[in-house]
Amino acid sequence: MANSIYRASMLQSNSQLLFQPCLSNKHCVPKKTNLLCFASSQLNPARSEVSFCTGTHLIPHPNKVERGGEDAFFVSNFKGGVIAVADGVSGWAEQNVDPSLFSKELMANASSLVGDLEVNYDPQILIRKAHAATGSKGSATAIVAMLERNGTMKVASVGDCGLRVIRKGQIIFSTTPQEHYFDCPYQLSSELVGQTYLDAVVSSVELVEGDTIVMGSDGLFDNVFDGEIVSTLAAYSDVVEAAKALANLASNHSLDSRV
Amino acid sequence: MANSIYRASMLQSNSQLLFQPCLSNKHCVPKKTNLLCFASSQLNPARSEVSFCTGTHLIPHPNKVERGGEDAFFVSNFKGGVIAVADGVSGWAEQNVDPSLFSKELMANASSLVGDLEVNYDPQILIRKAHAATGSKGSATAIVAMLERNGTMKVASVGDCGLRVIRKGQIIFSTTPQEHYFDCPYQLSSELVGQTYLDAVVSSVELVEGDTIVMGSDGLFDNVFDGEIVSTLAAYSDVVEAAKALANLASNHSLDSRV
Repeated sequence: MANSIYRASMLQSNSQLLFQPCLSNKHCVPKKTNLLCFASSQLNPARSEVSFCTGTHLIPHPNKVERGGEDAFFVSNFKGGVIAVADGVSGWAEQNVDPSLFSKELMANASSLVGDLEVNYDPQILIRKAHAATGSKGSATAIVAMLERNGTMKVASVGDCGLRVIRKGQIIFSTTPQEHYFDCPYQLSSELVGQTYLDAVVSSVELVEGDTIVMGSDGLFDNVFDGEIVSTLAAYSDVVEAAKALANLASNHSLDSRV
Repeated sequence: MANSIYRASMLQSNSQLLFQPCLSNKHCVPKKTNLLCFASSQLNPARSEVSFCTGTHLIPHPNKVERGGEDAFFVSNFKGGVIAVADGVSGWAEQNVDPSLFSKELMANASSLVGDLEVNYDPQILIRKAHAATGSKGSATAIVAMLERNGTMKVASVGDCGLRVIRKGQIIFSTTPQEHYFDCPYQLSSELVGQTYLDAVVSSVELVEGDTIVMGSDGLFDNVFDGEIVSTLAAYSDVVEAAKALANLASNHSLDSRV
């Protein structure tokens, strides 16, 4: 089973991270930094003022706990909301380079650039400018999703981070990973041999009230079947709890020596 | 194997159909009606004047040959190009309704409406207006993709027709089928119980020169693995030949009693 192979590979090289934003028609008060929830929405076609409710949970790979893992992310409430994940390529550790530095700086730069005029709320341009501003040695896969208040979510991705949109208990939109060969994803790099924003897959999807979006590194999607994502979400009404449950599921699967 | 089950089900209820449009930087002369090829493209980000080269091939289910199968499609050169597939729901035959009538009228109506001002080159609105104009009894799944000349391809889909975008030998964009339960897809219907354009999944993807797009009914995607689609495309430079090869592959798989 291909999936078993993926799980085994994840055990070697990845941590678990996910976002689980949702559209809500309730005005929510942010309770803590990992729950951002701002606005209301109306059903398509008369949508207005859509934004994310976000829960996040990150579980570093057991061997990478000391530096907090190699994944990084940010959540912004700019416009409808921006969510992003980057996954530092672990191979850099063999060259005595901390793989987490590049991904964390990339996300920090992206976070500070979300309102940039030249970015113009375009996730591909955000990747270009954040990449250009990143000085750390290393490389990372990255995905950025930007939600317009009319419900259009634009996505740009380089590599094997991913995103799923779940509507009425079904996955209705998925990104697809890009890789050069098995376990060597497309990646933004400090070196010229890497990929750039021009290699990003750029797509968009029209969201409606009640949609749930799951974003994560390959640590999530290589360890959890899509069907498990759907069934886990169905068991939780709170996005923070759902995010935690999915991350724990991915972690447990990655440690399962039977697969 | 889930795929075996799908293949078996396809043998009962589906025919094979696909489009394989591509972006090209060559000016091509249309040779026959199933090859439409018009314009040139430039690479992102300085893209201009992108359009489809299209090859189509339809193989009806062996039991449905006499009425030409239950699938219908159209190809238009309006703007960057429009491609669409509809798959008539075969259950209508039990009520003495020819399942092909609805899908064929739906596609005929959609084809005549591509330039409609109210449609405004929006595939979801095209589905709404084509559905409203269809008087035949029956129901169908449907997918419509409309290419802007800047490279943005907008897609609207109701049910389990599908689309793949292949770039540099990898699938970089996929649609996801919607169904109520196994073998009962979301469908546009003559009856009130069916779905409407509001149930469509609406997405878009930014295409670049050299991308290949495969569109088809579930008769294609339930019978051919994504990896087989990629390897088949790699073997053909001509989209018409590739379309024929993929349709034959789907047909052969559907008739394979070993799976």
